[in-house]
Amino acid sequence: MTRQLRVMGICGTYTLESANGRMLEIISDKLKARGIDWVVWDNKKYPLPFVGEEGCWDHPNVKKYKELADSVDAFVLSSPEYHGTMSGVMKNSLDWLSFDQTSGKIFAFISTLGGQSNTTTLNHMRTVARWVHGFSIPEQLVIAKVKTAFDENGDIVDEDINNRVDKFTDSIIKHTEKLRK
Amino acid sequence: MTRQLRVMGICGTYTLESANGRMLEIISDKLKARGIDWVVWDNKKYPLPFVGEEGCWDHPNVKKYKELADSVDAFVLSSPEYHGTMSGVMKNSLDWLSFDQTSGKIFAFISTLGGQSNTTTLNHMRTVARWVHGFSIPEQLVIAKVKTAFDENGDIVDEDINNRVDKFTDSIIKHTEKLRK
Amino acid sequence: MTRQLRVMGICGTYTLESANGRMLEIISDKLKARGIDWVVWDNKKYPLPFVGEEGCWDHPNVKKYKELADSVDAFVLSSPEYHGTMSGVMKNSLDWLSFDQTSGKIFAFISTLGGQSNTTTLNHMRTVARWVHGFSIPEQLVIAKVKTAFDENGDIVDEDINNRVDKFTDSIIKHTEKLRK
Amino acid sequence: MTRQLRVMGICGTYTLESANGRMLEIISDKLKARGIDWVVWDNKKYPLPFVGEEGCWDHPNVKKYKELADSVDAFVLSSPEYHGTMSGVMKNSLDWLSFDQTSGKIFAFISTLGGQSNTTTLNHMRTVARWVHGFSIPEQLVIAKVKTAFDENGDIVDEDINNRVDKFTDSIIKHTEKLRK
Repeated sequence: MTRQLRVMGICGTYTLESANGRMLEIISDKLKARGIDWVVWDNKKYPLPFVGEEGCWDHPNVKKYKELADSVDAFVLSSPEYHGTMSGVMKNSLDWLSFDQTSGKIFAFISTLGGQSNTTTLNHMRTVARWVHGFSIPEQLVIAKVKTAFDENGDIVDEDINNRVDKFTDSIIKHTEKLRK
Repeated sequence: MTRQLRVMGICGTYTLESANGRMLEIISDKLKARGIDWVVWDNKKYPLPFVGEEGCWDHPNVKKYKELADSVDAFVLSSPEYHGTMSGVMKNSLDWLSFDQTSGKIFAFISTLGGQSNTTTLNHMRTVARWVHGFSIPEQLVIAKVKTAFDENGDIVDEDINNRVDKFTDSIIKHTEKLRK
Repeated sequence: MTRQLRVMGICGTYTLESANGRMLEIISDKLKARGIDWVVWDNKKYPLPFVGEEGCWDHPNVKKYKELADSVDAFVLSSPEYHGTMSGVMKNSLDWLSFDQTSGKIFAFISTLGGQSNTTTLNHMRTVARWVHGFSIPEQLVIAKVKTAFDENGDIVDEDINNRVDKFTDSIIKHTEKLRK
Repeated sequence: MTRQLRVMGICGTYTLESANGRMLEIISDKLKARGIDWVVWDNKKYPLPFVGEEGCWDHPNVKKYKELADSVDAFVLSSPEYHGTMSGVMKNSLDWLSFDQTSGKIFAFISTLGGQSNTTTLNHMRTVARWVHGFSIPEQLVIAKVKTAFDENGDIVDEDINNRVDKFTDSIIKHTEKLRK
């Protein structure tokens, strides 16, 4: 019998109560409805230290984070675009991953922006995923003009993006199944 | 009479006791010898919070950091390459800058790597500098195989790189003078 | 007395009868109204060979192209986004430039897209400009959904973009004057 | 029974008699020894026109090129770094591919450089492969200081790179098998 797939969300805003956190929640609902196990890292609850900060190397949250990352088959990275690329929170979270947690695993990417659509944040996260020997799916999500992108229930307004969300989720499942060891 | 130029170093490692910190020190020595005023941000002494962390918006170190950035004519960014791009420490430091501190100012970039040379970290920092309306000089420094790049006095071993350091410093001064308001 | 500034347009579509060519025309009108001399390369009239093609090294159009590039103080690059980056026509045109034509000169960038806005083409052209030791202005133009971006007179419909065009032109002139040797 | 896999090489220099062409030959020998079918596009023998050039849309070489690309399961792109990114020859060759030829197929990348190692050319080709919905393997090859990289038989001198070539080839085969439709 096939082991259940497990996917981990990593958020580029410090708290999950954000457009980025909401996007991870939307993806997790889709994945869980398809029988996939989901975990998400909550920096507010379990802050990761900066790499190099005193006490960082033995920090209990780092240990917990790495163990969680070890346990999954795929990652979904959701970052705001700050100054043209991923946030410092996202990059520091990625800095704590290493090949043991990432090699050969699937990566999928979401970028939210206050203004017009752009893919630089996604491109830069793809560079990181490649570096840690991950496999990035070609599908990706850009949520532009984020203040008007969600309705009062937190659902995505634009039908085209909702369709993309479905293809994004399908691709994560399909390719994680194909590439799992 | 012309006001003295002032340049600020920002370091991508948490402490300044690193190859990146050493590179900033080398550049500062060159600049100071040419009559330029130099300041450097020390994350270890004055830690910047993560953007979004509780209390971050009124954090005294953020205020101090922004005031220092306000006071300068140019920035030198020195980052290790972590997972194919700038460190989380560097990106979080850049996230705290805004147009008020950066528009029309000169940016110069240094990247250190454990292994072979690469320019991805530099390219990504250039994307950020562009986004905050800075002017990036074309000269840049890559210090590869960083463990053997310095001698016991902390001086750069490779003569070619030492020449590049001189051109790098010249370009910072020349272009900061040309572009200052 | 100050010598008149001269700016060269390079187009990423093979013919100038395109949105990219039109953008160069709009910029040239603005620059000429400010007393700047303008030249544009027309690949249809004077085709550049591929680098490496038989006879390319002594091709009269290459000679003509390099002489024109030699004569200018700044470049405006206007490319469609093909497959996420600049066109092959644009890249081959840039491949024919070298340091003699480009070092220390101002570069400015325009990208047109059929769909949503994106800056990847601009980022990649910036990488090239840096490599040939050019100075890139931070201002840049993205013309998305290009089929509806112009009215029947070929004027840009969106007022926000028209304002950006003015700032773009101002920046080219201001910085070419500051950096000219 | 499983159909034989077929891989296509695309070269960023105009002729295959180059370091880039040699790299494709080395990869093809490895793949053919493993029972994989190999085809390579020869721009010198069958020149592709520039996109937009008169007569380009019905050009027989374009038709031939697209048919060949249609027939394969994976692509290996080998480009020199010209001015910090892929050559115009490579970009124009990629411009002639579309989703029909590329969606869901494996892409692998090689970059050669006259000077020090760099990954910008690889990063930019990855952006294109993503755009055309390809899957890029994380393994990649950089051949720096290309003039001394090969011995008199055209074999790669550096043992570390030879090991990488084997892993690169293994990954192409393994992932093309996993992802084939």
